[in-house]
Amino acid sequence: MQKDERWNKPVLYQTEAVNDEGLNGHAYVPDGIKVETSNPLNSRPGTNPEQLLGMSLATCLEATLQAVEREHGVPHTAEVHVKVAYIGERAEYQFLVHAQIMVKGVDFETADKFAQEAENRCPVSKLLKNSGNYTAETVTSFD
Amino acid sequence: MQKDERWNKPVLYQTEAVNDEGLNGHAYVPDGIKVETSNPLNSRPGTNPEQLLGMSLATCLEATLQAVEREHGVPHTAEVHVKVAYIGERAEYQFLVHAQIMVKGVDFETADKFAQEAENRCPVSKLLKNSGNYTAETVTSFD
Repeated sequence: MQKDERWNKPVLYQTEAVNDEGLNGHAYVPDGIKVETSNPLNSRPGTNPEQLLGMSLATCLEATLQAVEREHGVPHTAEVHVKVAYIGERAEYQFLVHAQIMVKGVDFETADKFAQEAENRCPVSKLLKNSGNYTAETVTSFD
Repeated sequence: MQKDERWNKPVLYQTEAVNDEGLNGHAYVPDGIKVETSNPLNSRPGTNPEQLLGMSLATCLEATLQAVEREHGVPHTAEVHVKVAYIGERAEYQFLVHAQIMVKGVDFETADKFAQEAENRCPVSKLLKNSGNYTAETVTSFD
Protein backbone atom coordinates (compact mmCIF):
# COMPACT_ATOMS: atom_id res chain seq x y z
CA MET A 1 0.00 0.00 0.00
CA GLN A 2 1.51 3.35 -1.11
CA LYS A 3 2.47 5.66 1.75
CA ASP A 4 0.06 8.61 1.87
CA GLU A 5 1.58 11.58 0.01
CA ARG A 6 0.74 13.85 2.96
CA TRP A 7 3.74 12.26 4.70
CA ASN A 8 5.93 14.27 2.31
CA LYS A 9 4.68 17.60 3.65
CA PRO A 10 5.82 19.17 6.93
CA VAL A 11 4.11 17.65 9.98
CA LEU A 12 3.48 19.17 13.41
CA TYR A 13 4.90 16.09 15.15
CA GLN A 14 5.95 12.57 14.25
CA THR A 15 6.67 9.53 16.37
CA GLU A 16 7.30 5.82 15.93
CA ALA A 17 6.30 2.74 17.91
CA VAL A 18 7.93 -0.69 17.70
CA ASN A 19 6.94 -4.22 18.58
CA ASP A 20 9.04 -7.30 17.71
CA GLU A 21 7.83 -9.53 20.56
CA GLY A 22 4.05 -9.59 20.20
CA LEU A 23 1.52 -9.89 22.99
CA ASN A 24 3.89 -11.35 25.57
CA GLY A 25 6.83 -8.96 25.50
CA HIS A 26 7.17 -5.22 25.10
CA ALA A 27 6.16 -2.33 22.88
CA TYR A 28 8.18 0.87 22.88
CA VAL A 29 8.94 4.21 21.36
CA PRO A 30 12.67 4.58 20.58
CA ASP A 31 14.09 6.95 23.26
CA GLY A 32 10.62 7.04 24.87
CA ILE A 33 8.02 4.97 26.70
CA LYS A 34 8.37 1.19 26.97
CA VAL A 35 5.45 -0.94 28.13
CA GLU A 36 5.19 -4.60 29.03
CA THR A 37 2.56 -6.40 26.96
CA SER A 38 0.55 -9.52 27.73
CA ASN A 39 -2.19 -11.51 26.07
CA PRO A 40 -5.49 -10.24 27.52
CA LEU A 41 -6.69 -13.84 27.73
CA ASN A 42 -3.99 -14.89 30.20
CA SER A 43 -3.13 -13.59 33.65
CA ARG A 44 0.43 -12.42 32.95
CA PRO A 45 0.84 -8.77 33.98
CA GLY A 46 1.06 -6.25 31.15
CA THR A 47 -0.96 -4.10 28.85
CA ASN A 48 -2.42 -4.96 25.44
CA PRO A 49 -3.64 -3.36 22.19
CA GLU A 50 -7.12 -2.83 23.65
CA GLN A 51 -5.84 -0.80 26.63
CA LEU A 52 -3.33 1.17 24.57
CA LEU A 53 -6.02 2.09 22.04
CA GLY A 54 -8.43 2.99 24.85
CA MET A 55 -5.85 5.28 26.50
CA SER A 56 -5.05 6.88 23.13
CA LEU A 57 -8.70 7.71 22.42
CA ALA A 58 -9.47 8.77 26.00
CA THR A 59 -6.49 11.16 26.03
CA CYS A 60 -7.29 12.58 22.60
CA LEU A 61 -10.96 13.16 23.41
CA GLU A 62 -10.17 14.61 26.84
CA ALA A 63 -7.60 17.04 25.42
CA THR A 64 -10.08 18.12 22.74
CA LEU A 65 -12.80 18.59 25.36
CA GLN A 66 -10.44 20.77 27.40
CA ALA A 67 -9.94 22.97 24.33
CA VAL A 68 -13.71 23.15 23.76
CA GLU A 69 -14.33 24.06 27.43
CA ARG A 70 -11.66 26.76 27.23
CA GLU A 71 -13.12 28.18 24.03
CA HIS A 72 -16.55 28.38 25.68
CA GLY A 73 -15.11 30.00 28.81
CA VAL A 74 -16.15 27.28 31.25
CA PRO A 75 -13.99 25.54 33.86
CA HIS A 76 -12.54 22.13 32.97
CA THR A 77 -14.76 19.34 34.33
CA ALA A 78 -14.79 16.89 31.38
CA GLU A 79 -13.91 13.25 31.88
CA VAL A 80 -13.67 10.45 29.32
CA HIS A 81 -13.97 6.68 29.78
CA VAL A 82 -13.35 4.38 26.82
CA LYS A 83 -14.46 0.75 26.80
CA VAL A 84 -12.81 -1.66 24.37
CA ALA A 85 -14.08 -5.21 23.81
CA TYR A 86 -12.40 -8.10 21.99
CA ILE A 87 -14.95 -10.20 20.10
CA GLY A 88 -15.12 -12.82 17.36
CA GLU A 89 -13.27 -16.01 16.61
CA ARG A 90 -10.00 -17.18 15.04
CA ALA A 91 -8.88 -14.98 12.11
CA GLU A 92 -12.11 -12.99 12.45
CA TYR A 93 -11.42 -11.06 15.64
CA GLN A 94 -12.61 -7.49 16.05
CA PHE A 95 -12.51 -4.74 18.63
CA LEU A 96 -15.55 -2.72 19.65
CA VAL A 97 -14.83 0.76 20.99
CA HIS A 98 -17.28 2.84 23.03
CA ALA A 99 -16.48 6.27 24.49
CA GLN A 100 -18.43 7.79 27.37
CA ILE A 101 -18.06 11.54 27.84
CA MET A 102 -19.16 13.41 30.96
CA VAL A 103 -18.95 17.19 31.38
CA LYS A 104 -20.36 17.67 34.85
CA GLY A 105 -19.84 21.45 35.07
CA VAL A 106 -22.53 22.25 32.47
CA ASP A 107 -26.11 21.15 31.77
CA PHE A 108 -26.68 18.01 29.73
CA GLU A 109 -27.58 19.78 26.50
CA THR A 110 -24.36 21.79 26.65
CA ALA A 111 -22.36 18.71 27.64
CA ASP A 112 -23.75 16.86 24.63
CA LYS A 113 -22.89 19.76 22.34
CA PHE A 114 -19.32 19.86 23.69
CA ALA A 115 -19.04 16.07 23.30
CA GLN A 116 -20.16 16.17 19.68
CA GLU A 117 -17.76 19.00 18.94
CA ALA A 118 -14.90 17.01 20.52
CA GLU A 119 -15.95 13.89 18.57
CA ASN A 120 -15.74 15.84 15.32
CA ARG A 121 -12.31 17.30 16.11
CA CYS A 122 -10.33 14.59 17.96
CA PRO A 123 -7.92 12.95 15.48
CA VAL A 124 -8.32 9.48 17.02
CA SER A 125 -12.13 9.70 16.73
CA LYS A 126 -11.66 10.63 13.08
CA LEU A 127 -9.54 7.51 12.54
CA LEU A 128 -12.18 5.25 14.09
CA LYS A 129 -15.46 6.77 12.96
CA ASN A 130 -15.71 4.93 9.62
CA SER A 131 -14.88 1.55 11.14
CA GLY A 132 -18.44 0.55 11.96
CA ASN A 133 -17.20 -0.53 15.42
CA TYR A 134 -16.97 2.83 17.19
CA THR A 135 -19.68 4.58 19.20
CA ALA A 136 -19.69 7.47 21.65
CA GLU A 137 -22.24 8.85 24.08
CA THR A 138 -22.66 11.71 26.51
CA VAL A 139 -23.37 10.51 30.04
CA THR A 140 -24.23 11.98 33.43
CA SER A 141 -22.49 9.11 35.24
CA PHE A 142 -20.16 6.33 34.17
CA ASP A 143 -21.25 2.71 34.25
CA MET B 1 -24.74 7.61 19.25
CA GLN B 2 -26.38 4.32 20.21
CA LYS B 3 -24.01 1.77 21.72
CA ASP B 4 -23.40 -1.06 19.25
CA GLU B 5 -25.75 -3.99 20.02
CA ARG B 6 -22.80 -6.41 19.84
CA TRP B 7 -21.86 -5.08 23.30
CA ASN B 8 -24.83 -7.04 24.63
CA LYS B 9 -23.39 -10.38 23.55
CA PRO B 10 -20.61 -12.23 25.40
CA VAL B 11 -17.14 -10.83 24.68
CA LEU B 12 -13.75 -12.53 24.88
CA TYR B 13 -12.28 -9.67 26.90
CA GLN B 14 -13.26 -6.16 27.92
CA THR B 15 -11.26 -3.30 29.37
CA GLU B 16 -11.65 0.40 30.12
CA ALA B 17 -9.32 3.39 29.87
CA VAL B 18 -9.80 6.74 31.61
CA ASN B 19 -8.50 10.26 31.12
CA ASP B 20 -9.73 13.26 33.11
CA GLU B 21 -6.57 15.36 32.84
CA GLY B 22 -5.91 15.62 29.12
CA LEU B 23 -2.52 15.88 27.42
CA ASN B 24 -0.61 17.04 30.48
CA GLY B 25 -1.59 14.52 33.13
CA HIS B 26 -2.24 10.80 33.10
CA ALA B 27 -4.25 8.11 31.37
CA TYR B 28 -4.95 4.83 33.10
CA VAL B 29 -6.79 1.55 33.21
CA PRO B 30 -8.54 1.05 36.58
CA ASP B 31 -6.45 -1.55 38.48
CA GLY B 32 -3.98 -1.57 35.57
CA ILE B 33 -1.44 0.49 33.68
CA LYS B 34 -1.07 4.22 34.34
CA VAL B 35 0.93 6.43 31.98
CA GLU B 36 2.04 10.03 32.20
CA THR B 37 0.84 12.09 29.24
CA SER B 38 2.26 15.25 27.72
CA ASN B 39 1.49 17.47 24.77
CA PRO B 40 3.71 16.29 21.89
CA LEU B 41 4.39 19.93 21.02
CA ASN B 42 6.12 20.67 24.34
CA SER B 43 9.17 19.10 25.97
CA ARG B 44 7.48 17.81 29.14
CA PRO B 45 8.17 14.07 29.56
CA GLY B 46 5.26 11.74 28.90
CA THR B 47 3.47 9.83 26.19
CA ASN B 48 0.62 10.99 23.96
CA PRO B 49 -2.26 9.67 21.82
CA GLU B 50 0.05 9.23 18.82
CA GLN B 51 2.48 6.95 20.69
CA LEU B 52 -0.29 4.99 22.44
CA LEU B 53 -2.05 4.37 19.14
CA GLY B 54 1.24 3.41 17.49
CA MET B 55 2.03 0.89 20.25
CA SER B 56 -1.51 -0.52 20.03
CA LEU B 57 -1.26 -1.12 16.28
CA ALA B 58 2.35 -2.37 16.41
CA THR B 59 1.46 -4.90 19.12
CA CYS B 60 -1.70 -6.04 17.36
CA LEU B 61 0.03 -6.49 14.00
CA GLU B 62 3.04 -8.20 15.56
CA ALA B 63 0.87 -10.65 17.50
CA THR B 64 -1.12 -11.43 14.35
CA LEU B 65 2.12 -11.94 12.37
CA GLN B 66 3.34 -14.37 15.05
CA ALA B 67 0.14 -16.36 14.57
CA VAL B 68 0.59 -16.32 10.78
CA GLU B 69 4.23 -17.43 11.08
CA ARG B 70 3.19 -20.25 13.42
CA GLU B 71 0.42 -21.38 11.08
CA HIS B 72 2.93 -21.52 8.20
CA GLY B 73 5.46 -23.42 10.30
CA VAL B 74 8.24 -20.82 10.11
CA PRO B 75 10.25 -19.37 13.01
CA HIS B 76 9.18 -15.99 14.39
CA THR B 77 11.21 -13.18 12.80
CA ALA B 78 8.53 -10.54 12.15
CA GLU B 79 8.95 -7.00 13.39
CA VAL B 80 6.57 -4.05 13.13
CA HIS B 81 7.27 -0.31 13.21
CA VAL B 82 4.38 2.15 13.18
CA LYS B 83 4.84 5.82 12.36
CA VAL B 84 2.19 8.31 13.46
CA ALA B 85 2.16 11.95 12.33
CA TYR B 86 0.12 14.85 13.66
CA ILE B 87 -0.92 17.21 10.85
CA GLY B 88 -3.39 20.00 10.12
CA GLU B 89 -4.43 23.15 11.92
CA ARG B 90 -6.75 24.25 14.73
CA ALA B 91 -9.99 22.20 14.91
CA GLU B 92 -8.91 20.35 11.75
CA TYR B 93 -6.10 18.20 13.12
CA GLN B 94 -5.57 14.67 11.86
CA PHE B 95 -3.26 11.75 12.44
CA LEU B 96 -1.57 9.82 9.65
CA VAL B 97 -0.65 6.21 10.47
CA HIS B 98 1.85 4.15 8.51
CA ALA B 99 2.87 0.58 9.42
CA GLN B 100 6.09 -1.02 8.21
CA ILE B 101 6.25 -4.81 8.42
CA MET B 102 9.46 -6.82 8.07
CA VAL B 103 9.62 -10.64 8.13
CA LYS B 104 13.30 -11.28 7.66
CA GLY B 105 13.18 -15.08 7.95
CA VAL B 106 11.37 -15.57 4.64
CA ASP B 107 11.70 -14.23 1.08
CA PHE B 108 10.04 -10.94 0.22
CA GLU B 109 7.09 -12.44 -1.62
CA THR B 110 6.27 -14.63 1.38
CA ALA B 111 6.83 -11.72 3.77
CA ASP B 112 4.41 -9.61 1.78
CA LYS B 113 1.81 -12.39 1.80
CA PHE B 114 2.18 -12.75 5.59
CA ALA B 115 1.93 -8.96 6.00
CA GLN B 116 -1.27 -8.78 3.98
CA GLU B 117 -2.77 -11.66 5.91
CA ALA B 118 -1.91 -9.93 9.20
CA GLU B 119 -3.35 -6.65 7.90
CA ASN B 120 -6.62 -8.38 7.10
CA ARG B 121 -6.85 -10.06 10.51
CA CYS B 122 -5.45 -7.59 13.08
CA PRO B 123 -8.41 -5.91 14.86
CA VAL B 124 -6.64 -2.53 15.12
CA SER B 125 -5.91 -2.53 11.36
CA LYS B 126 -9.61 -3.25 10.79
CA LEU B 127 -10.53 -0.22 12.90
CA LEU B 128 -8.21 2.07 10.90
CA LYS B 129 -8.52 0.80 7.35
CA ASN B 130 -11.56 2.87 6.36
CA SER B 131 -10.15 6.09 7.78
CA GLY B 132 -8.37 7.22 4.63
CA ASN B 133 -5.32 8.00 6.81
CA TYR B 134 -3.84 4.53 7.27
CA THR B 135 -1.28 2.78 5.05
CA ALA B 136 0.95 -0.27 5.51
CA GLU B 137 3.90 -1.67 3.58
CA THR B 138 6.19 -4.67 3.64
CA VAL B 139 9.85 -3.67 3.96
CA THR B 140 13.27 -5.32 3.93
CA SER B 141 14.69 -2.67 6.28
CA PHE B 142 13.18 0.08 8.42
CA ASP B 143 13.72 3.73 7.64
